[in-house]
Formats: sequence, structure tokens, C-alpha cells
Amino acid sequence: MTDLAHLGPVEILTPKGEESLRFFVDVMGMEVEAQEGQSYYLRCWGDYQRWSTKLTESSTSGMACLGLRAWDPDALERLVSRVEGTGLGEGWTDGDLGRGPSYRFRDPDGHVFELYYEVERYDPPEHLKPAHKNVPGRYTGRGCAVKRLDHINILAEDVRANREFCVDALGYRLYERIELEDGTESGAWMSASIAAHELIYTADAYGARGRLHHVAFWVDTREECLRAADIWLENDIFIEAAPSKHTIAQGMFLYGYEPGGNRVEVTSGGRLVYAPDEPVVVWTEAERAKGQAWGVKTIEAFHTYGTPPVEESG
Amino acid sequence: MTDLAHLGPVEILTPKGEESLRFFVDVMGMEVEAQEGQSYYLRCWGDYQRWSTKLTESSTSGMACLGLRAWDPDALERLVSRVEGTGLGEGWTDGDLGRGPSYRFRDPDGHVFELYYEVERYDPPEHLKPAHKNVPGRYTGRGCAVKRLDHINILAEDVRANREFCVDALGYRLYERIELEDGTESGAWMSASIAAHELIYTADAYGARGRLHHVAFWVDTREECLRAADIWLENDIFIEAAPSKHTIAQGMFLYGYEPGGNRVEVTSGGRLVYAPDEPVVVWTEAERAKGQAWGVKTIEAFHTYGTPPVEESG
Amino acid sequence: MTDLAHLGPVEILTPKGEESLRFFVDVMGMEVEAQEGQSYYLRCWGDYQRWSTKLTESSTSGMACLGLRAWDPDALERLVSRVEGTGLGEGWTDGDLGRGPSYRFRDPDGHVFELYYEVERYDPPEHLKPAHKNVPGRYTGRGCAVKRLDHINILAEDVRANREFCVDALGYRLYERIELEDGTESGAWMSASIAAHELIYTADAYGARGRLHHVAFWVDTREECLRAADIWLENDIFIEAAPSKHTIAQGMFLYGYEPGGNRVEVTSGGRLVYAPDEPVVVWTEAERAKGQAWGVKTIEAFHTYGTPPVEESG
Amino acid sequence: MTDLAHLGPVEILTPKGEESLRFFVDVMGMEVEAQEGQSYYLRCWGDYQRWSTKLTESSTSGMACLGLRAWDPDALERLVSRVEGTGLGEGWTDGDLGRGPSYRFRDPDGHVFELYYEVERYDPPEHLKPAHKNVPGRYTGRGCAVKRLDHINILAEDVRANREFCVDALGYRLYERIELEDGTESGAWMSASIAAHELIYTADAYGARGRLHHVAFWVDTREECLRAADIWLENDIFIEAAPSKHTIAQGMFLYGYEPGGNRVEVTSGGRLVYAPDEPVVVWTEAERAKGQAWGVKTIEAFHTYGTPPVEESG
Repeated sequence: MTDLAHLGPVEILTPKGEESLRFFVDVMGMEVEAQEGQSYYLRCWGDYQRWSTKLTESSTSGMACLGLRAWDPDALERLVSRVEGTGLGEGWTDGDLGRGPSYRFRDPDGHVFELYYEVERYDPPEHLKPAHKNVPGRYTGRGCAVKRLDHINILAEDVRANREFCVDALGYRLYERIELEDGTESGAWMSASIAAHELIYTADAYGARGRLHHVAFWVDTREECLRAADIWLENDIFIEAAPSKHTIAQGMFLYGYEPGGNRVEVTSGGRLVYAPDEPVVVWTEAERAKGQAWGVKTIEAFHTYGTPPVEESG
Repeated sequence: MTDLAHLGPVEILTPKGEESLRFFVDVMGMEVEAQEGQSYYLRCWGDYQRWSTKLTESSTSGMACLGLRAWDPDALERLVSRVEGTGLGEGWTDGDLGRGPSYRFRDPDGHVFELYYEVERYDPPEHLKPAHKNVPGRYTGRGCAVKRLDHINILAEDVRANREFCVDALGYRLYERIELEDGTESGAWMSASIAAHELIYTADAYGARGRLHHVAFWVDTREECLRAADIWLENDIFIEAAPSKHTIAQGMFLYGYEPGGNRVEVTSGGRLVYAPDEPVVVWTEAERAKGQAWGVKTIEAFHTYGTPPVEESG
Repeated sequence: MTDLAHLGPVEILTPKGEESLRFFVDVMGMEVEAQEGQSYYLRCWGDYQRWSTKLTESSTSGMACLGLRAWDPDALERLVSRVEGTGLGEGWTDGDLGRGPSYRFRDPDGHVFELYYEVERYDPPEHLKPAHKNVPGRYTGRGCAVKRLDHINILAEDVRANREFCVDALGYRLYERIELEDGTESGAWMSASIAAHELIYTADAYGARGRLHHVAFWVDTREECLRAADIWLENDIFIEAAPSKHTIAQGMFLYGYEPGGNRVEVTSGGRLVYAPDEPVVVWTEAERAKGQAWGVKTIEAFHTYGTPPVEESG
Repeated sequence: MTDLAHLGPVEILTPKGEESLRFFVDVMGMEVEAQEGQSYYLRCWGDYQRWSTKLTESSTSGMACLGLRAWDPDALERLVSRVEGTGLGEGWTDGDLGRGPSYRFRDPDGHVFELYYEVERYDPPEHLKPAHKNVPGRYTGRGCAVKRLDHINILAEDVRANREFCVDALGYRLYERIELEDGTESGAWMSASIAAHELIYTADAYGARGRLHHVAFWVDTREECLRAADIWLENDIFIEAAPSKHTIAQGMFLYGYEPGGNRVEVTSGGRLVYAPDEPVVVWTEAERAKGQAWGVKTIEAFHTYGTPPVEESG
């Protein structure tokens, strides 16, 4: 039980606005809900809010801001108060499209977050009305037809410090983490719900700060992860890691880079954590060296590549 | 945010102990964790507790008791206090195998529940140890290889009264319900988590009390629901409703009767409710007449059949 | 071993040219390869010929012509000679778009067929070039993304007579058939390959002649049949039979009517017949009354509905 | 159109009889149809013959004999006559369990084959009778539940010579092949049917003769290949290549070594070749360097490992 309801929306930067837009719309199958300045507000058919992903053309790539929705107004107040206590708060903003007052802060690594409660629920136009009223938007089946923004993995110079901040100030539940032989924490998987992960921190190989590892979008079946790979292949999307199964969290994955350079995942499955007292699973360096669930070795770039490129981050 | 962590374990009665056992073990792919008297304690490979389903040989069928785990000791206290306030409490018991003190009560319809917090976590014997330590038990792949107890649908003379009790005293979130033209509530889908449903009430066509509609077990993909149908077919299990997709909750289903007569579902998918302020979806009689998601008409028995047989309930 | 290579292309008539075109292109995911007069030449991404389905606007619905490709020029000659011997031959035509000389004939029920050998292989334009050169066209993933024309089911007044013609004159292998209690043959499943069926005859409930039961398009997984149902639902396509599994031939199905009224199937799987001496499976009336593989009752319209509407056929 | 009906059964040698037997029965889900001496006759639920795989305990591993069924008695005669003409024939044997007179020969590389026509069709005992009479055996769902022997890949010192023998003397159709920059043929994919491959030759990295690359068993969906990996993982079967998609033939794969050392594949999908004049797809060294369909690099052992171990072959 946490004061957080869930993660998102996220704002992503891209130096290739048009190509990135085409990727998210044509290849991933998202819809443009609105446009403003250099930004497109994009949504998946299963997102209940108006949008889950804001794509902003910029001089570089990476994540600009990550929203976190509080459970209710009281929970928002408690969250803000705890964040203020850490000295990392930056104050209230007017929010964003379809979103009310938001409290901006940075995690210890410098990533920008916004806590909020008020949002507009999605009201589809006629051509995107779904057949069933318990579904937010029409399943068009276009491209990978991703259903919703699922989780974010961000890089940090010091995973442990950020993880502790998230657990202590934000109330995240910690489900799994990696501890290297020298005691360093190199990865932490956290969630505000029974989903195996919503917010992940992994170590930045360059010791850089504020960078993004990947943004993950959900599909309902692992068969759709395979299908997504077929679609990426036909659309010349760089596939960094072909569909396979994660050891940590047990989900199916497909990783690649969108035209702007940001790593994107199509994900499905993963364990659900119903136990309120679930022990944290701690993975050792030796265990991680075994690779992914079916023995696929994790490729080197997965441990080093992030956005923005390291020379530009700071 | 609720004081409940999740539903289960459940105790099911069967007049055909041996045949029912063979169904749950050989066809559904569950393991026998223990035996005591007329009862077998059964578990799925993904259940984190020692068992999720207690199968007890009896003169009749139906559900004997449904466990509900509290989030923590304080939450348990709050829950018990609220239930006591309704006058439906029956007092503390010693719990059951691997389960600590439990507070017994009846819902307005007469079904027996037990609230508890303390449980033993499953510790697999060597031959059932899983390859990955974040998975409770070994995936043997036997039969339908169901992963965990997912949800329970119970029949009630007065759905609304029971639903209100569950929301008010137990803190369940109500996600969807059916309201007939005459104002009667004929079904209510509730959850303590983001899962589309954990506890469902539907109207007992005979106005009987305390009966069971079905017990549902989870598989990770809808492909596995199809595979389960292939397996049921080869094992002469009566298939009441072949695999298809529910309109309500949007999950994939397969329904049949285990040898003891209880309706069992193999389920997968279904929407996840991340919005803390998700509006309740109210279905009309006309909408439900359209059948399931892809137009399959709901068969008549689905609206009438329950256990125990109606002449024996009361 | 037969002189036939495979069935197709097929020409379908529709009284609603534009709506039918939108169905095949937007919903089924086919491409327009060419247009001529009232006809659109459509192809699936896995069709090796330029087109597999010719959609012709007309005053009515139904099948105008079914192509059958011979194994080689000698086989074509043998086929034509055998057909001529039956007196059902009508003579040579110039073929059709991308198809050489074709020999036109009618089956005993009056359906028009054309035997041919020469065809143009599909040469995709740049935007439809596939990533792998052993695949005919790009997998765009649009709509149901059907892969190829799979099989045709045609109605006949006298199934046995037509089946005997197909086996004797065309060299089809008969894999399964239905024989009613009175000795009538009410269905026959034939193939020129190891595929479970390519050409099917079933009894016309009205005793009409020359009508079409359905045209079936292939997808590679049964998961894609489920996905096709999701897409049809969202596009208001009438679903006659939701996805389930056939007893005969063991394939997965989804049936509905395209806007012009013709029944269309999305199909996958089905047994492969490797045995050269596979015995014909004969189904009795009682066996067929059990419904489809998982017990789904075959709906009445499936036994009666065909195109064109019965008053217009003749 | 070929004189061959299909490939199989195959006889495999193993130095670890009991462990290999447990692998094929418990993990792969095959049934023991008979035992004789050091051999177990194993079958998949979808094999129409009594058995498809003979497992013989021996001092080493590898393939002992590969059966090839002729289309009919005349075709068998033609095949034998052509093989005799090559000087590679060894004469008639009494066949094997449930198989009539067989003509033994060696391919140019020295692998033993037997051509035959007469076989016993499988007649299941009561507990293995399937629900539908057009299915050979009961789908028990045990382990990977492989459906039938699908294809064999054998290593050869000189791929081209063996491929030419297979095409010329046996009448195989050649669908795809790899030609290195120096003109060497390093792989050839052949079939007697529309299936993408039945018999494959790839180059033996050691220039050894008579060795086996892998034996492949079919499952109907690519989802089942993923499931097979889950099952292999839990049973400590060495996974050489986790599930992914082949570029050549476009099938889904999972590769590993059974306890006796032989490489085994669980396969599904792959293109069907309906065109009688399908051009042979020739892959270049550069194209193959791109790895498998979704970019997974082919691991080195895949190009070198075979059975028996190279020091023992010859």
C-alpha cells in the first residue's frame, strides 16, 4: 500500500522529431492526442489518461520528465511533504496538458519528476471509440499496437541512493535488486502495485547522471512481443535484443532504439507480487552472469548504452 | 489502497474425492503439498503460500471457506473491527495448515470467510525447486499447468447487499457491475489490487444462499487457455464454455465442471486498473444480452448452475 | 502426388465494392496490386503470385471463378484432357492479370474454374519489399495481416458428385468427409498437398447451385485468429462464429461476413497429412452433432448461409 | 511432385540410454511404443506410424539410420533403381518394427538411409486414444508435447555432392542453400513436400563424415517453442540457442543437447512452398553473417558441434 497510484506519463526528448513520431505512431501503433509547440502528446489504446508519452523535439535525447500519479489528494500531500523533507523538491508547476497542479522534484541522480493527482480521463473521438466501454480506446491493431506505458528504467550514478529515496520518500516497494561482489547495488526494481516493476534504476556505466535506460510499453501476450520483432524488422528499427525472457521479473522483452536514439522495450508478462511481505530478491554478480531466463547472454551495450549520449549528459 | 492484500486460499468440497484430486493434480497440474483427514492441500507452481486450494471430500460440493489475507497486522485489526461492527463476525480460529490466527465471518449471503495475516511461505522440496529464485515453485508443465489461484465467483441471493458489505467492511474496490432494468444488481466485480477482479458476486438464479459459481486459476497467456481446452477434451472434462473472451473484465476464459461438480475456470489476461479513481462500469441488461466479447452467447447454465446443487443448499 | 500444385487465385463478387475493398485492405490487411474496370486485384504479404483475390463489383455476391495451378505444363495438359473427357470443359481463355492461358470449366454444380500454369511472380515495389528475400512481400502487420489465400469452401447441390469429379478428373486427395445416416454425403475436404484442406464442398441447404460457402485466409498462429476477432469487433464486422477449433481438419477458425455478404474465414493450424495412404476419415451425423473440437455448437446459419443469396442463384 | 512421401523414422544413438530416454519421454513428452534389445521405439502424439524415433543405447552418439518413405510401391521401385544407379546402394533389409522391406543405402557422406513403403499405422491403446478420430494419438500435454518428427539436419564433408545426390536420385526439391564467397556450398534445405524443409545438409566444420547436426520435433505454435524453453530450463537441459526465428525457412527454433549429446530442436512455423516453380533462394556469406531473423547472432557451436564427437566419427 503506497501513496502512489502509478508511474507516467513520461516526456521523451528526440533530436529527430519527425522520425521518432513516425516510429511511435506507425511502428508502435500509438495515437497523436494533441500537439503543442515542439511536442506531440501520444497515447496507447489502453491508456486511461489522455496521453502517456510526450515526444519533444530537442537538441538531444533522453527523458525530460517523469510523472507519478498520487492515489488521492491526501496521498499527494503526504508525498510532497516527504519529498520536501529531502531537500530535492523544486516546487509546484501548472502541470501539463490535461493534468492539474504538479509538484516538481529531482531524484538524487538529477532526473526530473512531477507528482500530481488531477488528470483528464481520455474521451475518444468517434473513430477511436472502442467496442466495449470498459476499454479506454479502440484497438486498431496498427503496428505493435502497444497497450499502455508500462515501466521506465533510468540510469543512475548511485543506484542505492536513488532506490532508497524512492522507497523512503515515494513509498515504492522494492521487489528485486542486484548487488555486486564489492557491495555496489547495480540495479533495483520497484513498483507501486502488484506489477513486477514500474520504476527501475540501473547503474550508469559512465558514472554519468540523469540518463535514461529505456521506456517500456506493454502488450498483452508474449506472442505480441514476437510480432513486434517482425514489425521492427520490416521497418528497419535497430533490434538490440531480440524477444526473449528476463530472469529478473520474468517478463518477455524486445529491445531496440527509436530513431532519436532512446531505447524502447516492448514487454509482456512478468510475475505479479500479491504477497504484502514479499522478500526482496537479491541477485549476485555470478547469478546475473548466467544471462537471461533461457540463457541468452545480455549484450554489452545493454549495460552501457543510454540517452542522452554520455558526452552530452551532465 | 485497501487493507486487504489478496484473496485465497479457498476450501472446496467434493463428493468425489479421488476423481476431484486427479482432476486438480493430473489435469490442472497442481501439486499436493499436504494431506490431513479428508482434505488435500493443493498448490499451483506460482502460489507463494504453501497452498491455495484445499480439497475436502464431503457429502456435497461447493465452497467451504474463503481466506482473505490482510496487508499487515494493523490492517487485519482494522478489518476485523469493521466486520465485527456489521454483526457478521464469528470469532477467531486457529487458522489452517501453515496459517496463523484467522477471524471467521460470513458474508450477508452466508458464505464463510476467514481473515488472516500470518502465513508460511512455500519452501519447495528438491524436485520442485524452480530454476529461478524469484519464482515460488517449479514449472512442471503438467496438464494445464495453472500458475495460481486467481479469483472466486460466488452466487448470492442479493448481490447488492453482499457487494456493499465487501466494499464497506472489507475495503474492496468495485470495478464493474450489472444492473438489470428493474434496478436489481445481478453481478459485481471487485478487486483489492489492479487485477480486473478477485472477488465476484453474481445472482443465484434459484434465490438459494451460500453457493459457489466458480473458482478460477490463472495461466499467463491466452494460448494456454486454448491448450487447457485441448487437455480437458482429452481427459473427458465437461467443457461448459469453450475458450473465448469476456466482455466484462476482458479476460480469456475456459469453463467446465470438475468431477465433484464445481465449476472451474482457466483464465488469463483481463484489464489492469491503474487509475485510483477508475469509474465503475455499469452494464445494462441489453448490453449483456450481446454475449461475450466476440459475440459468443452466454449459455443458459452459466446463469443457473452452481454448487452445491440447489436442493442441498440453504 | 497430383497434377495440381495448389488452389487460387479466386475471384469474388460484391454488390458493395467500396466497403468490401476497405474490408480486405484495412481490416484483413491485404494490398491492392492492380485495378482494372470494376475489379481490384488483392494480395496477402505471403502470396507468391501477384494476387490471390480479385474483388469485382457486381450486382450480387458469390464466387465468379476459382483458379487451379497445375504442377507444370505437362500436368496442365493431363488435367485439361481429363476435364475435357468429362464434358464439363469450356475451352481456353487468355487468363487474367499476370496469368497465362487458362482452361475454363465448370464443376458438376456449375462453379467456374480455370486451370493454368503460367504466372508472374510477385515483384514488390520498394515500400513493400520484405526484410528477408525468402518472403514474398513485406509483413506490414496492418489489420489481420493475413498471409495467404488458404482454402475455399463451396456449396453444392450434390456433394458426392462434385467430390468424385475433383478426385477423378483433378486428382485431388480426399482427406475427410461427412456421410449422413441416409447415405448422403454432406461435406468433403480435399487437398492437393499435405495441408488438411484446400478445396471443400458442403451441401447447399437450399439445393441451390453454384454458391460459395466461404473463402479462407491463413495466419501463422492461432493467437492471430484471436487477434483477428479483436480487430473485426472494433471494425463492426459481423462475427458469425468466434474463434474456436474445428473438429474436422483440426484448424482454428474465425468466421464472419464481409460487407458484400460473402463469408470469410481467418484460419490457422490444422493437421498435416504426410501419409501417402492416409485413410479417409468419415464422420457420421451423430459425431458432427457434437459440434466443434471444444464442444462449441455449430450455429445454424453455418449450415444454410451462402452467397449469392439463394433467390438470386441458379 | 516427388517419389518420396516424407522423411523418418530416425534411429538415434546415445551413450546414456536411461537419461536420454527420460529426456524424450518426460521432457519432450513422447511415448514408448515398444522396446527391443537396447532400443526404445518412441512416438509423438501426432505421428501416424507406430514410432518416429528409435533410441538405441550405444558406445557413442549420432544418427544410426534415417528412413524415407516412398509414395507408393512403384515410387519405391523407381527410387531404389535410381539409388542403385549411383553405386551407393547396399541392398534390402527386413525393415524394422512395424516396417516392411527396406532398401538400405548410404549418402555420399556415409550416412545410412532406408527407403521403404510398407508400414503399420498406429493403433493407440485405450489410455492413449484421442478424442477425435482424425488425430493419431492422445495429446497428453506432458512436457514439450512434441507433435511429430519434423526434419533432420545432417553434417557432411561436401554439402553440394550430397545435395545433388538427394535431388537427383531421391527427387528432393531444393528450397534454400548457402554459397560461400569461395563457391563452397555450406548448407542446403530440401523437402519432399510444401514444408520448408525436411532434410538439411550443412558443412561439417571438421571435415568429418557421417555426423548428425540435429533432429527436429514439431509443435503447432511458436508459443509452444517458448514453453518448451521454460520446460528445458526447469529440467536442466542445456539450451544452446534460446527460442528465436530462423532467417532461412522462417521457422521458430529452440536448440539444445539431449543427455546423450545429440542436438535436438523444437520447431514451429516456417514458410510453406506452394509454388511448383519456386526459385531456389541462395544466401551469401554476408547475408548469413547478419544472424537469425531478428538479428540474434548464430552461436559458434552451432557451426561446429555435431554427433558423434569428432574424434569418434570417421
